[in-house]
Amino acid sequence: MTASSAHAHDSFVRRHVGTDPDAQRHMLEVLGHESLDEMLAAAVPGTILLDDAEGARSVASAVPAGISEPAALAELQALADRNTVRRSLIGLGYHGTHTPAVIQRNVLENPAWYTAYTPYQPEISQGRLEALLTFQTMICDLTGMDISNASTLDEATSAAEAMLIARRSVKRNGNVFLLDSDALPATKAVLQGRADGLGIELREVDFAADGAPEGDYFGALIQYPGASGRVWDPRDVIAELKSTKAVAIVSADLLALTQLASPGSLGADVTVGTSQRFGIPLGFGGPHAGFVAVRKGLERQLPGRLVGVSQDTDGNPAYRLSLQTREQHIRREKATSSITTAQVLLAVMAAMYAVYHGPEGLTRIGRTVADRTAALADLLQRSGFELVSESFFDTLEVRATGAAGDIAASLAEAGFLVHTAADDLVHLSLDETVTEGDLEAIAAAFAPHAPTPGQDLAAVEPGTGWDALVREDAFLQHPVFSSFHSETAMMRYLRRLADRDFALDRGMIPLGSCTMKLNAATEMAGITWAGFNAVHPFAPREDVTGYLEMITQLESWLADLTGYETVSLQPNAGSQGEFAGLLAIRAYHASRGESGREVCLVPSSAHGTNAASAVIAGLRVVVVASDARGNIDLDDLKQKIKDHGDELAAIMITYPSTHGVYEEEVRTVCQLVHDAGGQVYVDGANLNALLQVARPGEFGGDVSHLNLHKTFCIPHGGGGPGVGPVAAKAHLAPFLPGHPAMQQEQHPVVGQGEGTHDGPPVSQSPYGSASILPITWTYIRLMGPDGLRHATASAVLAANYMARRLSESFEILYTGENGLVAHECIVDLRPFTDRTGITVDDVAKRLIDYGFHAPTMSFPVAGTLMVEPTESEDLAELDRFVDAMLMIAKEADEVVAGTWPADDNPLVNSPHTAASIATGEWTHPYSREIAVYPGSWTALEDDSVHDSAQMRIQSKYWPPVRRVEQAYGDRNLVPTWPRD
Amino acid sequence: MTASSAHAHDSFVRRHVGTDPDAQRHMLEVLGHESLDEMLAAAVPGTILLDDAEGARSVASAVPAGISEPAALAELQALADRNTVRRSLIGLGYHGTHTPAVIQRNVLENPAWYTAYTPYQPEISQGRLEALLTFQTMICDLTGMDISNASTLDEATSAAEAMLIARRSVKRNGNVFLLDSDALPATKAVLQGRADGLGIELREVDFAADGAPEGDYFGALIQYPGASGRVWDPRDVIAELKSTKAVAIVSADLLALTQLASPGSLGADVTVGTSQRFGIPLGFGGPHAGFVAVRKGLERQLPGRLVGVSQDTDGNPAYRLSLQTREQHIRREKATSSITTAQVLLAVMAAMYAVYHGPEGLTRIGRTVADRTAALADLLQRSGFELVSESFFDTLEVRATGAAGDIAASLAEAGFLVHTAADDLVHLSLDETVTEGDLEAIAAAFAPHAPTPGQDLAAVEPGTGWDALVREDAFLQHPVFSSFHSETAMMRYLRRLADRDFALDRGMIPLGSCTMKLNAATEMAGITWAGFNAVHPFAPREDVTGYLEMITQLESWLADLTGYETVSLQPNAGSQGEFAGLLAIRAYHASRGESGREVCLVPSSAHGTNAASAVIAGLRVVVVASDARGNIDLDDLKQKIKDHGDELAAIMITYPSTHGVYEEEVRTVCQLVHDAGGQVYVDGANLNALLQVARPGEFGGDVSHLNLHKTFCIPHGGGGPGVGPVAAKAHLAPFLPGHPAMQQEQHPVVGQGEGTHDGPPVSQSPYGSASILPITWTYIRLMGPDGLRHATASAVLAANYMARRLSESFEILYTGENGLVAHECIVDLRPFTDRTGITVDDVAKRLIDYGFHAPTMSFPVAGTLMVEPTESEDLAELDRFVDAMLMIAKEADEVVAGTWPADDNPLVNSPHTAASIATGEWTHPYSREIAVYPGSWTALEDDSVHDSAQMRIQSKYWPPVRRVEQAYGDRNLVPTWPRD
Repeated sequence: MTASSAHAHDSFVRRHVGTDPDAQRHMLEVLGHESLDEMLAAAVPGTILLDDAEGARSVASAVPAGISEPAALAELQALADRNTVRRSLIGLGYHGTHTPAVIQRNVLENPAWYTAYTPYQPEISQGRLEALLTFQTMICDLTGMDISNASTLDEATSAAEAMLIARRSVKRNGNVFLLDSDALPATKAVLQGRADGLGIELREVDFAADGAPEGDYFGALIQYPGASGRVWDPRDVIAELKSTKAVAIVSADLLALTQLASPGSLGADVTVGTSQRFGIPLGFGGPHAGFVAVRKGLERQLPGRLVGVSQDTDGNPAYRLSLQTREQHIRREKATSSITTAQVLLAVMAAMYAVYHGPEGLTRIGRTVADRTAALADLLQRSGFELVSESFFDTLEVRATGAAGDIAASLAEAGFLVHTAADDLVHLSLDETVTEGDLEAIAAAFAPHAPTPGQDLAAVEPGTGWDALVREDAFLQHPVFSSFHSETAMMRYLRRLADRDFALDRGMIPLGSCTMKLNAATEMAGITWAGFNAVHPFAPREDVTGYLEMITQLESWLADLTGYETVSLQPNAGSQGEFAGLLAIRAYHASRGESGREVCLVPSSAHGTNAASAVIAGLRVVVVASDARGNIDLDDLKQKIKDHGDELAAIMITYPSTHGVYEEEVRTVCQLVHDAGGQVYVDGANLNALLQVARPGEFGGDVSHLNLHKTFCIPHGGGGPGVGPVAAKAHLAPFLPGHPAMQQEQHPVVGQGEGTHDGPPVSQSPYGSASILPITWTYIRLMGPDGLRHATASAVLAANYMARRLSESFEILYTGENGLVAHECIVDLRPFTDRTGITVDDVAKRLIDYGFHAPTMSFPVAGTLMVEPTESEDLAELDRFVDAMLMIAKEADEVVAGTWPADDNPLVNSPHTAASIATGEWTHPYSREIAVYPGSWTALEDDSVHDSAQMRIQSKYWPPVRRVEQAYGDRNLVPTWPRD
Repeated sequence: MTASSAHAHDSFVRRHVGTDPDAQRHMLEVLGHESLDEMLAAAVPGTILLDDAEGARSVASAVPAGISEPAALAELQALADRNTVRRSLIGLGYHGTHTPAVIQRNVLENPAWYTAYTPYQPEISQGRLEALLTFQTMICDLTGMDISNASTLDEATSAAEAMLIARRSVKRNGNVFLLDSDALPATKAVLQGRADGLGIELREVDFAADGAPEGDYFGALIQYPGASGRVWDPRDVIAELKSTKAVAIVSADLLALTQLASPGSLGADVTVGTSQRFGIPLGFGGPHAGFVAVRKGLERQLPGRLVGVSQDTDGNPAYRLSLQTREQHIRREKATSSITTAQVLLAVMAAMYAVYHGPEGLTRIGRTVADRTAALADLLQRSGFELVSESFFDTLEVRATGAAGDIAASLAEAGFLVHTAADDLVHLSLDETVTEGDLEAIAAAFAPHAPTPGQDLAAVEPGTGWDALVREDAFLQHPVFSSFHSETAMMRYLRRLADRDFALDRGMIPLGSCTMKLNAATEMAGITWAGFNAVHPFAPREDVTGYLEMITQLESWLADLTGYETVSLQPNAGSQGEFAGLLAIRAYHASRGESGREVCLVPSSAHGTNAASAVIAGLRVVVVASDARGNIDLDDLKQKIKDHGDELAAIMITYPSTHGVYEEEVRTVCQLVHDAGGQVYVDGANLNALLQVARPGEFGGDVSHLNLHKTFCIPHGGGGPGVGPVAAKAHLAPFLPGHPAMQQEQHPVVGQGEGTHDGPPVSQSPYGSASILPITWTYIRLMGPDGLRHATASAVLAANYMARRLSESFEILYTGENGLVAHECIVDLRPFTDRTGITVDDVAKRLIDYGFHAPTMSFPVAGTLMVEPTESEDLAELDRFVDAMLMIAKEADEVVAGTWPADDNPLVNSPHTAASIATGEWTHPYSREIAVYPGSWTALEDDSVHDSAQMRIQSKYWPPVRRVEQAYGDRNLVPTWPRD
C-alpha cells in the first residue's frame, strides 16, 4: 500500500484507523511481514485478491476518492438542502413528534448510548436493560398486554411476526389469516410478502362493517384506529375471533391508547405497533422501534428480545435478556422468527419520552391531538366538507370528489403534505406538533375547494363514536414514569443509566463477527439535520430529491465495493436483508419454472440467522459439514449437491467464514453450486475483511446482505438500529424488495443502467432506516476506495497481531493455510478449561474486572472466544487487551497450582463490584486489590501523573452488579416494572 | 402566583423548575406559608416587592410571554437565518478553524463538560484540571515561556493584563507604556481604556521601522506577526527594551508559532494571545480562550487561574489551582487584576485540538496556511497587485489604490469577507479552512481590479523575511500530544477526563452565589449553528442583521427585567461588567466636572471582586461595616458618607446581600448615597433572587452588571465562559462600553428610544461573547415574565426549605426580619467546629463521599458554608443533600462521643477513593462501607430494584484522588507537563 495524501496525518483515514504507521510497522514485524500488501497477499487467496495491477481484479473503484470531514459534511448538507421539508399530515403509521432536547442530546447524540452493543453481557449493560424494561412496561401498560418484547423493527414487520405467533400457537384452523381492510397499506404489503413465503392465505375483511366472517382461520389483524382514522369498537369482533380459537391481533396507535380502551381490555391476544410518535423523528421512514406484546401464555412465542429481572450472585436484583433460547442463533433452523436486531436506541428514546412526559403528560398530548382534530373537523364541516367517518382520534378522511389533488396542492403551498385517494378523498393525520394556528392554515387551504361553499355540514359532534371506548384505566403508574419530569432530573437519570454501561467510549469491544468500530462524530452529524430527519417516508418524489440522490449514490457505491450489480437499501436489519435475498433466489428460480428448488445448503459453521432466514423464506435447510480447518468440506458439499439435484436452491456461505479465515476454495464452492443450478448467497457479516481486498460478487456470489451497522459504521445503539441492504447480480434485480410507496422505482444496475426492484417489501417504509444512511454515506465519502482498503488491511493486521500475541497462552482455533486469520480469531478455551477448570464465562466476566467487554462467547464454536479488534483500535488498546488475557491465563495457573481453590478465586467470582470489596470481612483467598484492580492500568492512582504510560490509564469501569444468574430469571420471568 | 398555561405540565417552566406543584405544597407547609406569593411577601421588603396589582411596581413586563421549546427554536433559527455567513478573510485576531467533530460532540455538546463549575474543589475536578494543565503546556511550548495561566478572556484583555504585570513588576521607569503601531486595533482600544483608568500613558511606536525609542517606559507590547501581516525579527528591539529594565510583552499568533521562532527564544518576558484558531468557532467574537504566559520570576504577577501538580494525602499526584492567594476574592482591594472568570471550556477545547493534531499536525496546518498565503501572494502579484510587505505568515496587505471597496465587493460576491483601509489597502488573512480552490476564487475576484492588469509584479519570493525566524526547536513533545490522534482514542480520553469530574449532570452543585442551575439542551442548541458560530466579529452590518436583532431584543429584555434603561452586552465576564460599570460612574462624574469623586464605598460583606474592580477602575475603596444581622450598618454608612463628602463616587452593594438576605433598608441606602451625590452600583450576582420580584433599577440602582452564566443559564463550563453585561439608567448610557468596530451604534434606551454607548471597550469584540447569547435569549423566550417570577419564587422556596431542614443540626447565620432567607443560606459551622473539631473543609470533602459538590466555603464569612439550591433542583435532591448534612452532623457527634478519634474518622479522612478501600489492611476505626457508602443512596446495590425510592439512586461518584494538599503544590509549583 502506498502512502497517499489520503493518509496524511490529519486525514480522516488516519482518524478512523487506530494504528498509525509506526504501530503498523511494529505489528508487521511481530508477524514477520514486510508490508500490509504483502500480508494481505499471504492471508487472502490469490484467486480472489484484488490488486493494484490493472486487469479483471483491479482494486480500482467507482467510489470517489476520500475527502476531508468538512468537505464531506458540506456535500451532505447540500443533499439535505435539496429535500423540501414540509409538515406532514400524511400519517399512515408515521407522525410528527417533538423529540425532547434533553433526550436528543443525552441519548441520540451521546456515544455512551449509541456506541453500546447488544446487552448480551448483562453485567455491563444494566443501564440500557433498565431503559428497555421501562419500554416494555410502557408498551404493556398502554396496550393492556402482559408481556412486550424490547422492540421490533417497525409496525409492519411486527404485524408479520404476530401473524407467525398465531401460526405457531394455533395448530388447527387451516391456513387463512384475516386482515383488516382498514389496515395500513404498508402493513398489508409486508404481510403479503411474508405470507407468500410461508404459504399462508391472506384474506381482507372489513371488520368494522362486516364483523368476523364465518370459516376457518388461525388469526386476524385489526387496525385500531383504522388507517382511515375510523374509531370503532372491536370487542365483539375480537370475541367472535376468539370463540373460533383464532388469535386476535390488534395493530394499535400508542398515542390513541392514552384516550381509547386498550386492546388488552378489549380481549386482544397480541398487540403490535410502533413507538415512533413517542419522540422519534420521521426520518423518511426509520429507524423507529416497533413492538409486539402478548397476553400471558404466549411469551415463549414472542419474537425479539425480552428483558427481565433476575438477580446476581450476591442476590441483588439485576436485569438481563430473558428466554434467550427463543433466539435464532440458538434455535437455528428450528427458528421461525428472524429478529435478533431490535431497535434498542429508538426504544430507549421512546421509553424516555414516556418517562419525561409521564402519564399525565402523555394523556394531555393525546387529548390535545384529539381536540385539535375535532376542531379541524368542525372547521372543515362548517365550510361544507363531509367526513367519511364522524368517529376519529387524529385522522380525518374528507370527501372532496374530484378536488383532492387541488386541495393537496393548496396544502403543499401552505407547507403541509397530505395523502389523497383517487382524487376523491383527502386523508389528514394530526400530531403533537400541530398548533392552533396550523388548524386555521389547513382549513384555509381547503376552503376554496369546498364542494358547496358556504354550506355548513357540522351536524354531528365529532368524536361521538368513542363513548364506549373512552379509556378508564390508569397507566404508567410506576414511579419511573413520575420521577424525572424536570430536565435536570431527566439529564441525571440518563447519565446514571449510561454510567452503568460499557460502550465503545470506554474501551474496546472486541466482539467477533460484530465489528464494533469507530462511529465517528462527523458520520453522526447528518442524522439530526431537519433535511433528513423531518421527512415523511411517503413524501412526494419532488420533495425528496436530495434523499433519492444520496440513496442512488449509496446503492452504486455499495454495488461497486461488493462486486454486485444492484442494491436495495430497504431491509432495516441484517436478518431482513437475508430474508429478502433468499426470497429473491426463490422468486428467480420460480420465474424460470424451477420452483421445486427449495433446498438451501448451510455450512455447519454458519450464523444461526442463516438457517432461520432460510426457513422463513420457505426453504429447507441442509447442513454441509466443515473440515478440520473449519472450512467447508468439499466432499460433503459435492455429496449434498448430488443428493438434492434439482431441489438445490442455494448455498449460504459467510466469507471470510465465521471461523475467521479466508477459505482458499471459495471460488470452487461457488462454481460447484452454480454448476448444479443453485445460487450463491454470501452473508456479508464479515465484509469488513473484504472491502477493496476482494469482492463477493466477483468471486461467485449472486446475492449478499450487508450490515451497515458493522462494516459501514452505523452505531449498534445498544442493540439496534441495524441496516441490512441486499446486494445482488443483475439477474436477481427484479426480485429485490419493492414497495408500493417507493418514490423512485428505478435503481442503478451495473451494466444495464437501471432497473426496477419488484419483490415484496420487507420493511414498512420504502427505504428502510433511511435517516441513518447518511452515516454510511459519510463514511464511504470520507474514506474513499484507498482508505477503505487501508481500513481492511489494518483490521486484518490487528486481528493477526492479537492472534499472534494471544497464542503465547492460548490456542487459536483456525487459521488459513499460511497461518494467518482474517479480521477475527477464535481463541479456543477448551484445552484451557480442561486444564484449569476456568470456563469461557469466567474469562468473559473476569475481563470486566480488567475493564473490557468480553469477546463473542461460544460462537461459532462452543467453549471459545471470538476476538475481532477492528481497524479502529490503537496499539495500546490491543496490547492492553492481550495483556489482560495473558494475566487471566496466569490467574488460572494459580488455580491449577492450588493457590486458590477452584470454587473461590478471582475468575469464578468475577466480576467484582465496588460494593463487594467494601464489606468488612473479606473471606476470599485473594486480595481486594486483585479482585478489582488486577491490571496496573485499572488503578486510578497514577504512580506518576507524568508518566506517559500512565496517561492511558483506564478510568476504572465499575460493574453495577455481580455475575447475573441466567436460569433464575427465566424461571421467574419479570418482564416489566411492577404495574400496580 | 396563579397557575397559567405557561405552567402546564409539559411547558418549559415545568421542565426548568425542579419542584412540581405537589412538592412546592409540601415545602410551603414545612415553612408555614400558604403560597409562593405569600412567602415572597414575607421574605421581600414591601418597599421593593413587585406585585400583580397595577401601579408603579407592577410585575408586568415588556418581555414576551413564554413559548414552547420548538417554537422558541424556530424563532431563534429565523434570527440565525438572517445572518449571512460568508467565509472570513478579515483576520485581526479572529480566524476560521475546523472544530474537530469529536471535540465538538464530546466537550462542547456534553453536559459533563459544560455544566461543571470552576475547579476550586480539586478532588472532583481532576479531569478538567488535567485538560488545563495541557492547555498551559501547549501555551508554554508554543510561546517559549515558562508559566502560562489557564486562560484569560481574550487577546486584548490579556494584553491589558500584561501591561499591568509590567506596571507591578517595574517600580521605576515612569508611567509610559509603548504600544506597537502594528498591534490589533481592538487591542489598542482596550489598552487605552485600561490605561486611562489607571493613569498610564500609552505611546504608539512603529517598532519594526523605528526600533525601541529613547526615554523611560515600564513596558512595551509588540504584535508578532504584526496586524498588517508583516513578519519581522523583534529580537533586537526586545533586547533594547530589556536593557532599560522595561518588560517586553509579545502578543503572538499561536499558529504562526508553529513556524516562527517563539517569543521566549527572542527574549520576551511575557507573551499573550488567543487560542481561538485552535478549533474554536469565530462566534461573532467569542467566547475564546486568551492566555498570558510569563518567564520564571513573574509567576506571582500572573493574572487568572494557574493549574499545578500537587499530591493527595496518600501521596499520589493530583492537580489543583495553584497560587490562589493571587486571586481577588482573597486579595480584595489589594488586588490589581480582576480576572477570576477564565474561559475554561474553550481552553479545554483548544488544548484538545492540540492533543488531537499533535506537533506534527499543528506544524502541517501552519505550514499549509503559510504555503497557501504565499501561493495567493504569488497569484496576486502575477496579476499586477503590489504587497505592502513581502514577509508574511498568513496575512497579506495588498495595495489597491481607490479600488479596495470594489475588490471587497467582488470578494463578498464570491462569498468572502475582507478588511479594507481607506479604499487603498485590502487586508487578507488565510486560515486552515482555506482550500486551493479558494485561492483561485479569491484571485479571480481581485483580477478585474488590478491597477495595471497584466503586469506581473512577482519579483520577490514571498516569505523571505523569515529566514532568521524559522522555528527550530521542538514543541508539544510530551506524550499527551502524541497519544490520542485517532478519533477512538480521543473520544475515550475525553470520556475518561469527564468521568473524573462532578458536574451538574451527576448531582446538585449547591454553590452559594454561583447559581448552578439547569443549562437546558434547547438553550444550548443555537450555539453550534453556523448562522451564529461562523460569523466574524467585524463582519459588515448587513451580514449580521439576525445577530443585531437578537442583541437588541436581549438588551431590551434585560433592561426591562432589571428596571434599568440600557444594557451593554459587551463585557465577557462579570468582572469586566463591573469594571465597565464603575468606569461609567467615573466618567459620569467627570462629565459633570466632579472628577474628584473617587471614593467607592464597599460593604464588608461584599464580593472580593467588587473591591478589586473599584481599584482597577481607579477608585479608592472605603469599607462600610455590617450590623449583627449582616445588613449594611446605616450609622456607619452615614458616617462614611459624611467623612468623604464630595469625594464620594459610589457605593457598591449586592442585593440580596452576599449574606443571602433581602435587606429591608436597601431603598434607604440608595437614597442616602444619591442624596450625597454618589451613584449606586448594584452587583447583579444575586439577581436570581430578584427577577420579576424586584428591580434594582427601580429601587435605587444606577448601574449593575448581570451574570448571564448565573441567573440566565449560560453554563459555567468548568470555569468560563462567563458573560457580564452592564445595565444602567439612561444618564449613564453614554459612558457604557463602545467599540470601534461595533456594527450598530444605537442601543435601546428606555424612555428615549435609543442612544449610543461611547465608553472605551472592555472586550476585544464589540458584543463580547456573542455566540453564547442565544442561550440567554432562549431562556428568557421560553420562560416569559411569569415563568421567570415562578423561577425566582421557587429558588427562594428551595433555599428556605433547606435552611429550615438544615437548622435541625446547624445554625443558619443570617435571615431577614421574618426569619426567611433569600435564594441562599449561610450555614454557620463555627459553633459546630468549636464543638466537634470538624472543619468546613472536612464537611466539604465528606460531602464528596456522599455524592455532592460542596457548597461555597468560607465565603462571605470564614467558617461557614453557603448553600444555594436554585429553582432547578427537585425535592428529592434537596432532601438528599439535607440528609447528607444531617448524617455528617451525626458522624461528628461520634467524634465528640469518642467513638472515633479526632484524627482518624471518616470526616477528616474524606474523601475516600475506591483504591483506599481496596487495600488489604484497613486500619481505621470505621468500616469501609462507612467510608464510601455512607448514605443508603450512594450504594449501587438496590435492595429492591422495584422500590421507587431506590430508583433515584445516585450512581456512586468515585473521586479519583483523596484530599489534595494545597500548600505542597504552591511550594513546588509544577505548572506544565514535563517539557523534555
